[in-house]
Amino acid sequence: MSAGRKRVVVVGGSFGGVNAAYELRRRLPRDAEITVISRDAEFTFIPSLPWVTMGWRDPSRLQVRLDAPLQRRGIRFVHGEVQELDPQACEVRTSSQTYPYDALVIASGAELDYAAVPGLGPQVGHTFSTFTCAEAAASRDALARVLAADKGRIVIGAAAGASCVGPAYEIAMMIDTVLKRARKRHRFSITFVTPEPFLGHFGVGGIGTSPRMVQDEFAERHIDSVVNARIANAGPDRLILADASEHPFDFSLVIPAFLGSPFVRGVDGLANPKGFISVTPQLASAKFANIYAAGVAVAIAPPGPTPVPVAVPKTGHMTELMAQAAARNLAAEFTGGVKVDGMTLHSTCIADAGDTAFYMSADPFLPPRNKVIVKRGKWARYLKLTFERYYLARIRHDLPSMDFGW
Amino acid sequence: MSAGRKRVVVVGGSFGGVNAAYELRRRLPRDAEITVISRDAEFTFIPSLPWVTMGWRDPSRLQVRLDAPLQRRGIRFVHGEVQELDPQACEVRTSSQTYPYDALVIASGAELDYAAVPGLGPQVGHTFSTFTCAEAAASRDALARVLAADKGRIVIGAAAGASCVGPAYEIAMMIDTVLKRARKRHRFSITFVTPEPFLGHFGVGGIGTSPRMVQDEFAERHIDSVVNARIANAGPDRLILADASEHPFDFSLVIPAFLGSPFVRGVDGLANPKGFISVTPQLASAKFANIYAAGVAVAIAPPGPTPVPVAVPKTGHMTELMAQAAARNLAAEFTGGVKVDGMTLHSTCIADAGDTAFYMSADPFLPPRNKVIVKRGKWARYLKLTFERYYLARIRHDLPSMDFGW
Amino acid sequence: MSAGRKRVVVVGGSFGGVNAAYELRRRLPRDAEITVISRDAEFTFIPSLPWVTMGWRDPSRLQVRLDAPLQRRGIRFVHGEVQELDPQACEVRTSSQTYPYDALVIASGAELDYAAVPGLGPQVGHTFSTFTCAEAAASRDALARVLAADKGRIVIGAAAGASCVGPAYEIAMMIDTVLKRARKRHRFSITFVTPEPFLGHFGVGGIGTSPRMVQDEFAERHIDSVVNARIANAGPDRLILADASEHPFDFSLVIPAFLGSPFVRGVDGLANPKGFISVTPQLASAKFANIYAAGVAVAIAPPGPTPVPVAVPKTGHMTELMAQAAARNLAAEFTGGVKVDGMTLHSTCIADAGDTAFYMSADPFLPPRNKVIVKRGKWARYLKLTFERYYLARIRHDLPSMDFGW
Repeated sequence: MSAGRKRVVVVGGSFGGVNAAYELRRRLPRDAEITVISRDAEFTFIPSLPWVTMGWRDPSRLQVRLDAPLQRRGIRFVHGEVQELDPQACEVRTSSQTYPYDALVIASGAELDYAAVPGLGPQVGHTFSTFTCAEAAASRDALARVLAADKGRIVIGAAAGASCVGPAYEIAMMIDTVLKRARKRHRFSITFVTPEPFLGHFGVGGIGTSPRMVQDEFAERHIDSVVNARIANAGPDRLILADASEHPFDFSLVIPAFLGSPFVRGVDGLANPKGFISVTPQLASAKFANIYAAGVAVAIAPPGPTPVPVAVPKTGHMTELMAQAAARNLAAEFTGGVKVDGMTLHSTCIADAGDTAFYMSADPFLPPRNKVIVKRGKWARYLKLTFERYYLARIRHDLPSMDFGW
Repeated sequence: MSAGRKRVVVVGGSFGGVNAAYELRRRLPRDAEITVISRDAEFTFIPSLPWVTMGWRDPSRLQVRLDAPLQRRGIRFVHGEVQELDPQACEVRTSSQTYPYDALVIASGAELDYAAVPGLGPQVGHTFSTFTCAEAAASRDALARVLAADKGRIVIGAAAGASCVGPAYEIAMMIDTVLKRARKRHRFSITFVTPEPFLGHFGVGGIGTSPRMVQDEFAERHIDSVVNARIANAGPDRLILADASEHPFDFSLVIPAFLGSPFVRGVDGLANPKGFISVTPQLASAKFANIYAAGVAVAIAPPGPTPVPVAVPKTGHMTELMAQAAARNLAAEFTGGVKVDGMTLHSTCIADAGDTAFYMSADPFLPPRNKVIVKRGKWARYLKLTFERYYLARIRHDLPSMDFGW
Repeated sequence: MSAGRKRVVVVGGSFGGVNAAYELRRRLPRDAEITVISRDAEFTFIPSLPWVTMGWRDPSRLQVRLDAPLQRRGIRFVHGEVQELDPQACEVRTSSQTYPYDALVIASGAELDYAAVPGLGPQVGHTFSTFTCAEAAASRDALARVLAADKGRIVIGAAAGASCVGPAYEIAMMIDTVLKRARKRHRFSITFVTPEPFLGHFGVGGIGTSPRMVQDEFAERHIDSVVNARIANAGPDRLILADASEHPFDFSLVIPAFLGSPFVRGVDGLANPKGFISVTPQLASAKFANIYAAGVAVAIAPPGPTPVPVAVPKTGHMTELMAQAAARNLAAEFTGGVKVDGMTLHSTCIADAGDTAFYMSADPFLPPRNKVIVKRGKWARYLKLTFERYYLARIRHDLPSMDFGW
């Protein structure tokens, strides 16, 4: 892998794919061909989708078309879904075309595993979600109907094996805030049903004093909680847990577990049984040296066992850092240079509650940590708002990344 | 119930009865006859009775004779105890006389159910209490003797089914304060024995972060605690719990459970088995449309089950708001007008610890809530003090009510 | 015990012995003969030994030779170890000489009971400790090697029956601080293994809200903890608990239980089975009226039972107060005067974490207490530092004691 014009294919058009492509463009020779293949025509700032659910944001404000910004930088953009990967032939295939590569970056995120729980999910099931603009818009309309009523039962939760429980916390607290503002909170119950062994675990064993902070917050907001919950079935008006307890609802939003992309799961030796890619600390596939991965597509072992499985989340921030590290290491293959550790990542995230917000910074992301900051305040809401605006401008214009909080 | 001169009888001369009578006077036509029948000749500011127990207040400072203030406003005052209620004949009877009514407001509070636990109570038993001036004065004298000694064992608690556990918390903390000031706290044990499932439950499942706050406070004060306690027997020098554990004492004050007034319990369909009146949200009896109820006399279901029964407290503040709502709804029957919800109440209460105090505000009183404030500080003591003074003046002069804290 | 020239022997040259001797010198007639017999030629400021373990202090800075300061005040100093005590003959014997006494003060501290756990201790075992300069220096060198590595497993703990667990807390937190500063905390695990029933118990049932404070601190520092631990065996690379769980380590420091001095254990009726002296509140032996005791040598009953035994610590501060009280009461025997209670003591201690510190003040030391202060802040580190400097000067020059914080 050294002579000639190189072809690098990046699968994914979200935090991982876009950042990998930008970073590759900066690091690879001018004649290298970089192709981004994305199922979606637009980049979506997924962290703000809970605000869509609340009706506080129009989805269009959170999207940037991918073609123009990528092409302006000499990156080819293909709007299509990869259906097959042949690591021996070094090719990926969409329904219409085949793309050979010298190196591949997989940043295709995950599938939402609604099928794991009967009745789960907004399409064939009874619970809402907030991982795509369509999901968020559907949840918004259903939630608005319920909140317009005189009383109601709200059940927010996450399925066993879920990794990204943060939005569930945000939505539970934001609904509390909205109901308080309408002075009818007392006529609605809010129940939080989570596979975590304790509130504020977040799939990482807690972030500093986050467990205590979340417990206090839920006490003050009178949000009931069920931990170690394994949702067995989602009926039209109730969640049924594995212990047969039932949680009736008028509105329910449940975070699903994730599965790796189907084209990844099809390749022997690339991924773990759930379809997440096993990587070296440099983010190369443990089996195929010219395949790199970043973000949600990557397998990360949980810091410890839990009674009900909870997976490690990958924030947008982490995904971006992984994508930059993967791109840097891939470029080092072609052009020389030092490879970096892409698995020991810090991450900052802000969870919004509507009336206040929680700023959590962890370095590294998994414990034990060199540094941890957990703070609560309105200022964190404004920081989250500002960051969203900046990030969308950044994707449009390839601005420098902003590693705030450190 | 519309034409002619109306006769309204109000049973009770405390927070509920006086406020109902004042509100009725404001709302009913001048020719309506309003009669208050009270077992006590004086209004007593019950929330300050724990200060009598501590020897910090003379009982006389907490009382206002009822006759003059009521009569000055054209309200008839009868000093007597209602012994029978005939809802068909629309009459109440004292030992000496019968009072017919067009509408009745029952704000007669509760009986102290010392009989439920052998040995309980200051009259035939071995534990003190603080719900009347006489009880408070008796507990003051006994406590003073014990605190004058060189060492001692203090056991403060509440019986199973008790609703009003707040004074027990206050007295436990105030005794700690007094002993510290005398620099002999280390020679006294203070044990808190409560049916609540956790400290700071208060019969309402906690008020925001009150459980954590109380636990910290008790840790700092080295007040030992036993939760889920069911007192089975009160001996001359020890409490014996249902689990056979014993708590020896030199001084013990135990809050009893409450029972509805005997004349209420005698009427079929008016009250629940404990004698508390089942009401509509408008505070009318569920069975007798011309009977209203307010305050402690009203049945309120607990927010959830507990291993040992704990009943929902009704603060003076809540009772006043209920009495005003009941009076307003009763007047609306006679004169037209909109009825209001008298069961969704907010409440503010201040628990004194002697050296600091706890301000707790809950709206509504039962969770989930629109608003909750839990704060700790000396300022709350001064607020409590000031409020007592204002309230007594208010009863004397029918001043506007002061809904502080909102 | 009244006429003639009195001979008082003080056994011990640490907090207890030196302070007893100084106080006796102030209180006894000029012709009284005061002899201090100490195993060590130097006074060591033991509370700072954890700083030696961390490599932040040279042991020599923490020591003061005993001979000159004592002799300058007319106190005889004997460098030797007492091997026998004959309370009938009123004599103590070292290997070389016999010292008759009219009154004896035992402030000889304790033996480190490494033998109670196979494999424990720095000499024949595999775990380090920090109770002597030699121990601290050995632990410093071993710790430095482990911290210089790229990754490692640190296990800090205390054996069943240990009293002085404070240094273990300090060292666990200081190691966390050092690793964070080196930005490699994430590659080291730190596990805290303690017989206490909960973190922050400290052998005294907690100090105010210390349990919650320590739990939060450990959560923020990602220090794992095992409570109710009974270490059964210390292997070359792991601690094995009584429940068969194993804690592998690259470096381990374990606080041993204490045993009374052998010469004390040899005297029938003087001490409890562990060798700690049973005393009256005036600190005289319950059996031998002319023997006084102070500090670690004294038996103090724990405030309550714990699943695994934890003994009551005696801080340097307490030992000093006890020594002064014992000296005062002993002098009162000779010269008349009021005896004082030497067992109801307050104590202030500061636990250093390297980046912050914890100030804890308890009066009295065992609950329930008249006063308790628990605070966290960098200022407490500086206070600890300053106090160390002052204290060493004080031993040199017999300056007045500084009872800070009250």
